[in-house]
Amino acid sequence: MSRGVLMVFSGPSGCGKGTVLKEFFASGGDAFLSVSATTRAPRPGEEDGVHYYFLSREDFEQRLSQDEILEHACYCGNYYGTPRGPVYERLERGENVILEIEVQGGLQIREKCPEAVLVFVLPPSFDELRRRLLGRQTEDMETVSRRLETARQEMQAAYDYDYIVVNDRLEDAVDELKAIFAAEKIKTANRKTMIDEVLRYDA
Amino acid sequence: MSRGVLMVFSGPSGCGKGTVLKEFFASGGDAFLSVSATTRAPRPGEEDGVHYYFLSREDFEQRLSQDEILEHACYCGNYYGTPRGPVYERLERGENVILEIEVQGGLQIREKCPEAVLVFVLPPSFDELRRRLLGRQTEDMETVSRRLETARQEMQAAYDYDYIVVNDRLEDAVDELKAIFAAEKIKTANRKTMIDEVLRYDA
Repeated sequence: MSRGVLMVFSGPSGCGKGTVLKEFFASGGDAFLSVSATTRAPRPGEEDGVHYYFLSREDFEQRLSQDEILEHACYCGNYYGTPRGPVYERLERGENVILEIEVQGGLQIREKCPEAVLVFVLPPSFDELRRRLLGRQTEDMETVSRRLETARQEMQAAYDYDYIVVNDRLEDAVDELKAIFAAEKIKTANRKTMIDEVLRYDA
Repeated sequence: MSRGVLMVFSGPSGCGKGTVLKEFFASGGDAFLSVSATTRAPRPGEEDGVHYYFLSREDFEQRLSQDEILEHACYCGNYYGTPRGPVYERLERGENVILEIEVQGGLQIREKCPEAVLVFVLPPSFDELRRRLLGRQTEDMETVSRRLETARQEMQAAYDYDYIVVNDRLEDAVDELKAIFAAEKIKTANRKTMIDEVLRYDA
C-alpha cells in the first residue's frame, strides 16, 4: 500500500482557507486534518486533542529536543507546533494529512519532510481580500490595514510553494485540492512498489 | 493566461494506452493529441496531418538540423518524430498537449522540455499484460513472447517518469489522467503571473 500525501495548506487571513477545507471535507474529501500542539491555556469549550493538544512548556520543549515537533513558532510567549507522531501514523496507514499552518511553519516542513506538498491559497485579488476582511466588520480600519500588510508579506511565500489554489469559485478551489491529492498519490515516488511488482513476474 | 501542460504518455504494447486516451477524450478530457512526422510512405487511408505528417527524408533531416523536431527515432529505415511547431503553438494558447510516444522519445522530451510531465501507463500485472496480448489472437506465441520481453524492458523506464497510471479500471485511469492535468495546471511555475497580479495592487 502506498503512503498518504502530506500536504501543507497555507494562505493569508481572509483568503478563505477554512471555508475551502470545510467544503473539501463536506464533499467527501479524504484526509486527516492535523491538530496542533500549544502551550497556551485552553479557552472555554476547547478540547484537548480536538482543537489543540495542550502541553506544558516543559513537555513541549522536551519534544522539541527529541525532534518530535515537525515545525513550531512562538506567538505571544506561547509555543505552537505540529507533533510528528499522529501525522506519520496516518501517512504510514496510507491516509492523507493536511497541516493548516502559517508560511514559516510550511517552509520548516519543506526542510524536514521533503516529500511534503506545499499548497498556497490566494484570494482572487488584493481588492477582494480587502473586501473580505472589511466584510467581517469585527475589526476597525487600522486592524484591517495591518492584516492586509501582513497578508502581502505572507503572500510573498507563495512563490516557494508547490501549488497555487485561487479561491475565487469555492467549488473550483475544492476540485483543485482534490486533484492535487489524486495526482500526488500517483507520483512515481509513491508507486515504486507497484512498478516493482509488475516487473517481478518471471516469464 | 497560463501555458498549457505538455504531457508525454508512454506505456508498453498491451497496456491499453490507446483505450485510456480514447475514453479521456470521449469523457470531455481537454487536450491536443500531437501528430507525429514520418518519412515512411502513407498507407491506404492515412491522411497527411491526421495520422502523420508525411515528410521527405530531406525535409525531416533539415528540420532535425534546425531543432524543429522535439524527439525522434529511426525504425525500419524511416524517421519518426514530433515536430515542435504545432506543439508549442497550442501550449502558448493555453491548450494541453499529449505526446503518445515511446520511452526513448519520452526521455528525449525530458531533456529538451524540462517543463514536460511524463506519464507512464502500467498494466495491473505482468500476467494481465500477457492475457491482453494473447487475447488479441492476431499473433503467434513467439511474437507474444517477444512483445512481452520488449514490454518488460520498456517498463524499466517507468521509474524515470513523473507519474504512474495503472490501467486496471479504465475510469480510474482516465480520472487519474485528468487529475494530473488539473494539478499540473496550478503548479506554482504555471501561476507565477497570478501571484504577481495579486501582489501588484498598491494599497
